Amino acid sequence: MLFQVEMDVAIPLGFDPAEAQRLKDAEKARFQELQRAGTWRHIWRVVGRYANVSIFDVESNAQLHDLLIGLPLYPFMTIRVTALCRHPSSMHADDR
Amino acid sequence: MLFQVEMDVAIPLGFDPAEAQRLKDAEKARFQELQRAGTWRHIWRVVGRYANVSIFDVESNAQLHDLLIGLPLYPFMTIRVTALCRHPSSMHADDR
Amino acid sequence: MLFQVEMDVAIPLGFDPAEAQRLKDAEKARFQELQRAGTWRHIWRVVGRYANVSIFDVESNAQLHDLLIGLPLYPFMTIRVTALCRHPSSMHADDR
Amino acid sequence: MLFQVEMDVAIPLGFDPAEAQRLKDAEKARFQELQRAGTWRHIWRVVGRYANVSIFDVESNAQLHDLLIGLPLYPFMTIRVTALCRHPSSMHADDR
Amino acid sequence: MLFQVEMDVAIPLGFDPAEAQRLKDAEKARFQELQRAGTWRHIWRVVGRYANVSIFDVESNAQLHDLLIGLPLYPFMTIRVTALCRHPSSMHADDR
Amino acid sequence: MLFQVEMDVAIPLGFDPAEAQRLKDAEKARFQELQRAGTWRHIWRVVGRYANVSIFDVESNAQLHDLLIGLPLYPFMTIRVTALCRHPSSMHADDR
Amino acid sequence: MLFQVEMDVAIPLGFDPAEAQRLKDAEKARFQELQRAGTWRHIWRVVGRYANVSIFDVESNAQLHDLLIGLPLYPFMTIRVTALCRHPSSMHADDR
Amino acid sequence: MLFQVEMDVAIPLGFDPAEAQRLKDAEKARFQELQRAGTWRHIWRVVGRYANVSIFDVESNAQLHDLLIGLPLYPFMTIRVTALCRHPSSMHADDR
Amino acid sequence: MLFQVEMDVAIPLGFDPAEAQRLKDAEKARFQELQRAGTWRHIWRVVGRYANVSIFDVESNAQLHDLLIGLPLYPFMTIRVTALCRHPSSMHADDR
Amino acid sequence: MLFQVEMDVAIPLGFDPAEAQRLKDAEKARFQELQRAGTWRHIWRVVGRYANVSIFDVESNAQLHDLLIGLPLYPFMTIRVTALCRHPSSMHADDR
Repeated sequence: MLFQVEMDVAIPLGFDPAEAQRLKDAEKARFQELQRAGTWRHIWRVVGRYANVSIFDVESNAQLHDLLIGLPLYPFMTIRVTALCRHPSSMHADDR
Repeated sequence: MLFQVEMDVAIPLGFDPAEAQRLKDAEKARFQELQRAGTWRHIWRVVGRYANVSIFDVESNAQLHDLLIGLPLYPFMTIRVTALCRHPSSMHADDR
Repeated sequence: MLFQVEMDVAIPLGFDPAEAQRLKDAEKARFQELQRAGTWRHIWRVVGRYANVSIFDVESNAQLHDLLIGLPLYPFMTIRVTALCRHPSSMHADDR
Repeated sequence: MLFQVEMDVAIPLGFDPAEAQRLKDAEKARFQELQRAGTWRHIWRVVGRYANVSIFDVESNAQLHDLLIGLPLYPFMTIRVTALCRHPSSMHADDR
Repeated sequence: MLFQVEMDVAIPLGFDPAEAQRLKDAEKARFQELQRAGTWRHIWRVVGRYANVSIFDVESNAQLHDLLIGLPLYPFMTIRVTALCRHPSSMHADDR
Repeated sequence: MLFQVEMDVAIPLGFDPAEAQRLKDAEKARFQELQRAGTWRHIWRVVGRYANVSIFDVESNAQLHDLLIGLPLYPFMTIRVTALCRHPSSMHADDR
Repeated sequence: MLFQVEMDVAIPLGFDPAEAQRLKDAEKARFQELQRAGTWRHIWRVVGRYANVSIFDVESNAQLHDLLIGLPLYPFMTIRVTALCRHPSSMHADDR
Repeated sequence: MLFQVEMDVAIPLGFDPAEAQRLKDAEKARFQELQRAGTWRHIWRVVGRYANVSIFDVESNAQLHDLLIGLPLYPFMTIRVTALCRHPSSMHADDR
Repeated sequence: MLFQVEMDVAIPLGFDPAEAQRLKDAEKARFQELQRAGTWRHIWRVVGRYANVSIFDVESNAQLHDLLIGLPLYPFMTIRVTALCRHPSSMHADDR
Repeated sequence: MLFQVEMDVAIPLGFDPAEAQRLKDAEKARFQELQRAGTWRHIWRVVGRYANVSIFDVESNAQLHDLLIGLPLYPFMTIRVTALCRHPSSMHADDR
């Protein structure tokens, strides 16, 4: 089941750089784990902003919620979730 | 080059149904032509609305503009364009 | 899987009253069919407006989309969908 | 008498974790007390956000106000209240 | 139980003036009936706009909803409802 | 001359509680002085928020401005002022 | 007593040009009558829009309301009213 | 050349009062210098807010920009600039 | 003197195509006349919308207003005007 | 390929002035390097605000993103990006 998730990241100006780097590394590792699993199907950077547009493929709303609030950078994120579904015109069987 | 394009479609209540169907059929044909060409990479329906979220892969801003204003349902659409780029964490070489 | 769905209904001033009544009756019948099935779990009227707040319990995003766009009054509705999940503090096993 | 209450919770980044946990525990206890009493009829988590959608069943506006401003996490909440009433199409005698 | 109700009235430019006058007269009569009953406690005109700010004193949300949707000018109104309660500092026993 | 004044109060989380209480007491005393004088005609609490809706009856815009900026809690308030006037349908001679 | 009044004028595309001209002439005559009386103290055109920013000097809110709703172009206007008062730094005795 | 400038001033709660007073005095002195020069033609206080509506008469956009960013309270201001011009109906030769 | 002008064009669905074409041709001719004169310095199409971003170089606010309201497509436009000035870092003497 | 980029800069009140100056100098040097390269084609100051409107000419979305996030003042900026393309009416071959 597909969801568009838009994430804006805002780390405060005075935040400890070493801790910030540690969180970003953890975020990247977690992202790649989820990408390998097919759960975090797509991610794109939004030009000019510390933000991404992502497509998640999950079993349920609850699974998506648990994934998102568990992200290392979650406390710094503003998140918008939009429920999607397959478009009837699409020719990609896989474009769930 | 990637762009997120969000399209909301609003056909007026009294619009001729046969003409509406003709435009929807033309829209679908044009969409599939562009999907086959790899230009309209993804399309998803937004749950509960006559709207979609799409990802375009184009050569230039001008190509994207020409594609969008040439869509059969363009006169009924409200369109928002967001410039995207590859995310540095992505493991998909192809997730342009 | 739970979704909050907010529906605002706006029937144009000059719309044929008999046709409006026919659509409202069909809407009510369809609503009760879905309420009996447990899909449209809750509905409440918003005070002072021709609008409702509803809770749907569906198998998938796609099922919700198909239900909503098939409603007799859908062409007159503005719809907002919010994905929900069970709250960890809730004591109601059934408050899916 | 029914009200939809939407609560967004924002605890500042540097807030003492032990005190935060104490407040969350107190919030949960108070919630369950009100759920048992039938006052806080429903609560759902909003996917991806530290927020909930709730339905309260109270005797009066004043009772609702007193309940809300007395919540342990109230100082961290942004709250929106919407007055609801029973929907004429509903078949649930109890869906107050 | 008190509610602030804000009503904006917009009658279309080409609407039949005689019918508009008939509706305004009916609205005034209905208003005065409710004012006499103590239900529509206050009404004030908003300067420069065809709009009012009102205070209703009702038994329940449902009573307020029925009153509002039954107003002769209701189909032309945009309505915002805000639940109020007595302020603890007020010295007016009657300022419900 | 009547004005609707909407006041939202936001005292920062870490503000000294004793000073906050002193300001609230001073605010209440000043409010009651103005209510007795007939200047602050009405005040209602907005359900679920640290906010009020008030009706002022003043001699001039300047008097209202001086009253508002002199309130003990003014530095913590967001204020919206709406000019009102008597409604032609009202039967209350006194509902200025 | 001073008010800033912002007026946006929107005459529908198909409106009868002769009637529009008649209304504009009446509006201008009424404006100049009020300007001569010192009531409509200032008017400026907003660059690029069929809109103005005005300063009114009136005896009361009620007088302002009556003036505004009596303007020939009032049915085509969107109006925002802001209560002003003399600025303590101003050296113009007359800048009421 | 005329511009409407709306200025909202927000000095943080904990800001040093003596420094705040020094800045306000400097702001007043600068304002009166510009008022005497005919550049800051009008200023009015917005009722209930630490804000003003002003009319500037300048030689160029660049002059206006330099004046505004040089104001002593500029770092605390949110500013909105609207380009104005003489209204064709005005009878005041001087109402530039 | 420089201004950014953003123009959105919305021609109603049922508008006579021949008249629309006549207006577009007139708009283009007028645009090119102003571009040749150096007044309409830049124009760019906004991707995906019938809209443009333009830079005007004019003698005064009044000249800009007269130019804009005289455009053949003006009745179909929504216009936003922003006053600009030369940036102190720019190395282009001509980038007025 | 052209993009309009709007940048608002907000340096916190208490930020170290020497560090701020160092960042502004670095920003200016970087800007001029990009202006010389033809990448940052235009920049204008927005009157009354610490903000600019700029036109970039880049090879790709990715190049624009890298340029923007590498700006010395980027951590203090709010950025809006709008994809542009050549306007069909323009006579300037160079107005890319």
